[in-house]
Order: sequence, then C-alpha cells, then structure tokens
Amino acid sequence: MYKVLSINAGSSSLKFQLIEMPGEKVLAKGLVERIGLENSIFGLSYGDKEDEQVLDIPNHDKAVQLLLENLQASGVIKSLDEIDGVGHRVVHGGEKFSDSVLVTDEVLEEIEKVSELAPLHNPANITGIKAFKEVLPNVPAVAVFDTAFHQTMPAESYLYSLPYEYYEKYGIRKYGFHGTSHKYVSERAAEMLDEPLDRLRLITCHIGNGASVAAVENGKSIDTSMGFTPLEGVTMGTRSGSLDPALIPYIMDKTGKDVNEVLQVLNKESGMLALSGFSSDLRDIEKEANEGNERAILALNIFADRIHQYIGSYASKMNGVDAIVFTAGIGENSVVVRKLILQGLEFMGVYWDPVLNETRGKETMINYPHSPVKVLVIPTNEEVMIARDVNRLALQK
Amino acid sequence: MYKVLSINAGSSSLKFQLIEMPGEKVLAKGLVERIGLENSIFGLSYGDKEDEQVLDIPNHDKAVQLLLENLQASGVIKSLDEIDGVGHRVVHGGEKFSDSVLVTDEVLEEIEKVSELAPLHNPANITGIKAFKEVLPNVPAVAVFDTAFHQTMPAESYLYSLPYEYYEKYGIRKYGFHGTSHKYVSERAAEMLDEPLDRLRLITCHIGNGASVAAVENGKSIDTSMGFTPLEGVTMGTRSGSLDPALIPYIMDKTGKDVNEVLQVLNKESGMLALSGFSSDLRDIEKEANEGNERAILALNIFADRIHQYIGSYASKMNGVDAIVFTAGIGENSVVVRKLILQGLEFMGVYWDPVLNETRGKETMINYPHSPVKVLVIPTNEEVMIARDVNRLALQK
Repeated sequence: MYKVLSINAGSSSLKFQLIEMPGEKVLAKGLVERIGLENSIFGLSYGDKEDEQVLDIPNHDKAVQLLLENLQASGVIKSLDEIDGVGHRVVHGGEKFSDSVLVTDEVLEEIEKVSELAPLHNPANITGIKAFKEVLPNVPAVAVFDTAFHQTMPAESYLYSLPYEYYEKYGIRKYGFHGTSHKYVSERAAEMLDEPLDRLRLITCHIGNGASVAAVENGKSIDTSMGFTPLEGVTMGTRSGSLDPALIPYIMDKTGKDVNEVLQVLNKESGMLALSGFSSDLRDIEKEANEGNERAILALNIFADRIHQYIGSYASKMNGVDAIVFTAGIGENSVVVRKLILQGLEFMGVYWDPVLNETRGKETMINYPHSPVKVLVIPTNEEVMIARDVNRLALQK
Repeated sequence: MYKVLSINAGSSSLKFQLIEMPGEKVLAKGLVERIGLENSIFGLSYGDKEDEQVLDIPNHDKAVQLLLENLQASGVIKSLDEIDGVGHRVVHGGEKFSDSVLVTDEVLEEIEKVSELAPLHNPANITGIKAFKEVLPNVPAVAVFDTAFHQTMPAESYLYSLPYEYYEKYGIRKYGFHGTSHKYVSERAAEMLDEPLDRLRLITCHIGNGASVAAVENGKSIDTSMGFTPLEGVTMGTRSGSLDPALIPYIMDKTGKDVNEVLQVLNKESGMLALSGFSSDLRDIEKEANEGNERAILALNIFADRIHQYIGSYASKMNGVDAIVFTAGIGENSVVVRKLILQGLEFMGVYWDPVLNETRGKETMINYPHSPVKVLVIPTNEEVMIARDVNRLALQK
C-alpha cells in the first residue's frame, strides 16, 4: 500500500488529497487559498474532522510546508516518510506529453517551455512541483496533464484552417482540456456499461464553470470542444465559447478596448454571467429561471443548446454514440440542464427517464432500459486519476 | 409578362441577368469586371451568342449605362421601357429587413445605416442601386438581402454569449448569409420531395468558395453557420471559419501583425488555401489529392469534416432531418466532397447512393430509395429569387 498526494496548484491556491493506493481511499484532503495575500486560508479535512486556519501564507513553499506539518500534527501520517509519491495536475503538456510522466529536470524544463501556451496556469503548476521537490526531494513526482488525453486526436480534428506554419512555428492547434476528467468518466462508463472501453463510442460532457465536450471513440479522444485555450467551445460560466473571430476587432472598435481587454471580457465577463446579467453560478440562474426571469431562461437555453449541438456533432463524427456521460459540478447535479440538453435527441436513439434524471452527484444510469444510447451521470475524480498515474509510473516499477 | 433585371453589384464588378417573369426565362446575362480599373471587361450572353469587350469603365454609373445600351444594341430589348423592375442583391439587412423590400429613399437610408455591419459589401450594393435609379428613375427597384431569410432564427441561436449590451448597443449577433440561396433550395427541395415546406426539416449546405450550412425547420431558418460576418462557421476557400477567439491576440503577438492584419489573414489567407498550401480552388485540391498529396487530402478531409459536424449538430437541433441539400459551386459539382460529408451519417438515417452521387450541376435525389433521410443536389439560383421578389413586391400589386 502506498500513500500518494494529489496536488492541484493554482496561482494563489493549492488543492490536495492524500490517497491510499491502490485502494483509492482518501485519507485527507484540503485547500490552501489566498497564497501570497493577507489572511490566507488553510483548510484540512480527514475522517470526520474539519480544520480551518486563517494566517499569512506568503508563497507556495510555505503552503506545502504547512500542509505537510498539519498532516503530521493531525495524525493522518506519522512521518513524511509515509508519503510515497506526489502527483501534480499540469494544465498544458503541449504536443510533448501524451501521457503522465515522472518529473525529472528535463521534464520540468519541457513543462516550462510549454508554459507559453498556458501562461495563466502552467507557471503555478510548476511552482507547486518545485515546492514539493524542495521539501520532499526524494519522493517521486508525476505530472498529469489536462491536455494529454486529447493527444490522440487526429490532425483533422486538431488543425485549425489557418496558415500551416502557424501550427509548425507557433504550436497553434487544438489541444483540448479537462482530459483527466474525460478519461476518468470514460473508464467508469465502460465499467458501468460492462463493455470494453475500446469498443465504445462515448460523448463525455464535463460541465462545470468551465465546460467541454469530448468524443471518445474506442477509449481515445478524437475531438473535443475546447481548443488552443479553454475559451473555445460551449458557453461557460464567464467564457463566451466559440464566436465569429471578426467580432474581436469590431468590439475593439466599438468599445475602445485593446485586444487583451477584449479577451478578458470573453474570458471573464461573458458566458452565463453576461447572458443572465446577474450571475455565472448556475444555481442562481436556475432559481431565477424558475421564477420566470426571461434572461435567466434564455441563458439556460443557450447553455444547453450549445452542448446539445456538440452531442449531435460528435455523434456524427463517430456515426452514432453508445453512451452520453455527464460529469463535473453542473453535469453531476443539474437536473434541469441535463433535461434541456437531452430533450430532442430521440432521432439518434436517446431515450432518457425524467425520474432517473432527478439524480444528483452519484453514479446513475438515467436512460430508459430500452434506450439504444445509454445516458450516465458520473461524478468525476481527477484526484484519483492523478494518484493512479503516480502509482503506475512511480510506484509499480 | 414582365422583364426584370437581377443585379449583384460588387465593389469593382456587376453581375446581371435579364429574366422574363413569371416564366423565369433568362433572356440575357452578363458580368462587368474591373470597374474603376484599366481594361475593364464587359461580357454579355444571350441566346447562343456571347460578347466580350475590353474597355475602360470608370464607375458603376458607366457600367449600368453600357449594360443597358448593349441590351438594346443586341436586340434583347428594343427600348428601356421594356424593363419593368430591377432587383438588387444586398448583403446585409441587419435586423431591420426580414424580407425583400421596395427601395424608397427611407429604405436606402436604412441600408446605409446597416453598412457598418458589412463595410466591404453594402456600399457596393448601394452604388448599384443608385446607378440604376439614375438611369431608370421610374423603374421600381427591390432590395433582396442575404441576411433576411435568417431573421427567423430564435434568440437562442442568434445571441452570442457576450455582454448583452453588445447586442443592444452594437448589433452584435449572428445574422447569417447566403439566405437567398438557402431559401431557394429549401423551396425547390419541398417541390422535389412533393411535401409541404412547412412540414419539413431541412439542412441546406451552400458550399462554394464561401460556405454555410443552415437548419431550415418548417420553411424557416432556425440556425446557420455563418455569424456576425461570413467568416464564422465551416472552413472555406480562404476563410478560416470558427476558431478559438484567444488565437487572435496570440497570432498578433507571434507575427507582429495588428488585429486587422490578422483578420485579413483569417479572411483571405486561411481555409483551403492555407491547409493545402497551394490553392483555394477545390478542383486543384481534388486533383492533387488524387495524386496522393498529403496536405491536399488533409484539406479535403477537414473541409468535409466541418460540414459533416454541422449536419449532426443541426439534426440534433431539429430532432432529426428529412432531407440534406447540397448547392453552390462545390455542393453541386464535387462528387468527392459530398461523399466525404455524407459518409458516416447512417446512424441518423442517411443512406446515399454512390452511383447517383456521380451527378454534377443538376437537380438530383442521390439517396437510396429506402433512405429515411433524403439527399438532394439542387443548383442554386439567387438571380431568379431576386426576380421573384421584384415580381412579388413591385409588379403584382
């Protein structure tokens, strides 16, 4: 048995789980917030206990140190020697990484090279890797990339219709994100359906504040809605998703914003927030829609329509689909959004049960028994996927 | 019987047909090219005759004058009095025009207001209207908009997930184009299928150098692939189609181009031209692909894939489709592109006959007899649609 830390480091946050492998039992989990700001928050839960401290945590090194101290102080582990491996979520692996990888100096250099493609995310992930390396120099670290699962996409899917040298020189292509989640739910779907993954055509819908849809054919991602960045694809909490590229100069011209300010609007002030006019949080929007708020109803309909269309689109890429999977905050919990997405797919053999659809946050098959296309709700678990890869790449050798 | 001129004025060109209504017989047609440049070209064909003159045509007024003189000199008409109406293609009608309209001073003013949305096209269309008004002041003119047919789209389809005031203040929304063509082939499809148009779910694929797909439900456009401008949607001859909006600042940064230069690349140097690396002309690309050119094959596959995906997407919007229609230069003539688009749609009931698919440029039903979804090739005829609207709005009162 091994104990593995699963780490997701953001620019001012650090999420962690300590998982016992191969049993996948979560021994402890927590979150450090506001790193580098005043009144940082350190939260840890284990067994039936929950701890929260407010203190100043100036940097990730300090956050990691605190985390490890608290794991020992709480008795979850007796010594740091018990930690057998650390797995790190890394947003962007470029074309270099089509699988998770044991972190070496060369690998870290490669991840740094790729940072240009994800300037908002990779540097924080790297900070996390380095902070753990500092404190646990002899514990193997594994990097798990959000993009890796989608590296199986064919050129037909990943190439934009842009000058070819943009791809060759600048790495401009579709990468896709949420790969760890799409992979996890694909594997779980095969188990739930009791079918071999390499014989299934799946459409996996990761719908949270960020959202993406993937076409997973025989276990391989063959297309996904996010692109060069997580901005592309469906309408999201605050992201516009795809739109006419000619709108960017037009918006610049009309608003006097520069291109980066417009991009900021597209990433932070668009999507459900903009459509509803009051919130990016789907729960707020559902509530208002229930009370008859027209803009909230419109926002919900657009949100569902864009995902609905991707399902049709990806079914056409695989000449049909065996199962549609919903995951992540909204996908697992929103009865209304799933309903809006699923209605009107009978033409392709999707018959879903409104009673079974009343499920929230647990693995459920929500299609009618005779439905040719199955519909699954599967809570995602990126942390366990990270721990599995640590186990596979660093511990089982 | 009436004689109607159907006019399509570009910035340096003027296409025309003289059509006898209601019989829709083309009495003459022609093209003036290089208006405002040296060595302009005037071409006219009527009966089995073809004329071409090279001379200097400094402006549209002169082009119109020449056109009318030549129609008389050739004996196609004896006097200008025989021209009963003129119909003008206008690219953009904004939200103001959901149908063709008799041109009055007020209408012309409205069209000018909308020009901001189509700065490359509407001004030329207006020049054409004015030039005819000058020479034929008493002949009624009708404006026929590329956007009008798509004005039936619901807000769910036409709204981008952008700040709502962008729609209210700046008119930022999906307008869609090629409406006259999508409408024409929808009407013809209903006739060919011998079904009432208002009971049909059609997906119309206008595939030329510019390309767009429309979902036409019960005779009404409910969604289309082009957006605020004709740049959005599928891969085209030189246009990129949809892409991650975040690519624009990235390309600017990498290439040192400003936003308008990048837009120029997306409009003029992308699409099939960029993917193939040698031509935007599908005939060249098909030829090279046949000889094993990898980039040509890739370009063809991407071109077809994007349209194939829209078919899946729009089928999902209508919970199925009764017929898929191909039109315009490539849609009418490319056996290979139709094949690549159609293969792998059996899951939604599309069974097409490869022998019947060997058709070019004429109305044909290319599905197997038992196919639940019909597949039609229909040569488009925007000129006749324009003449029909002149007839309906200016002559039949």
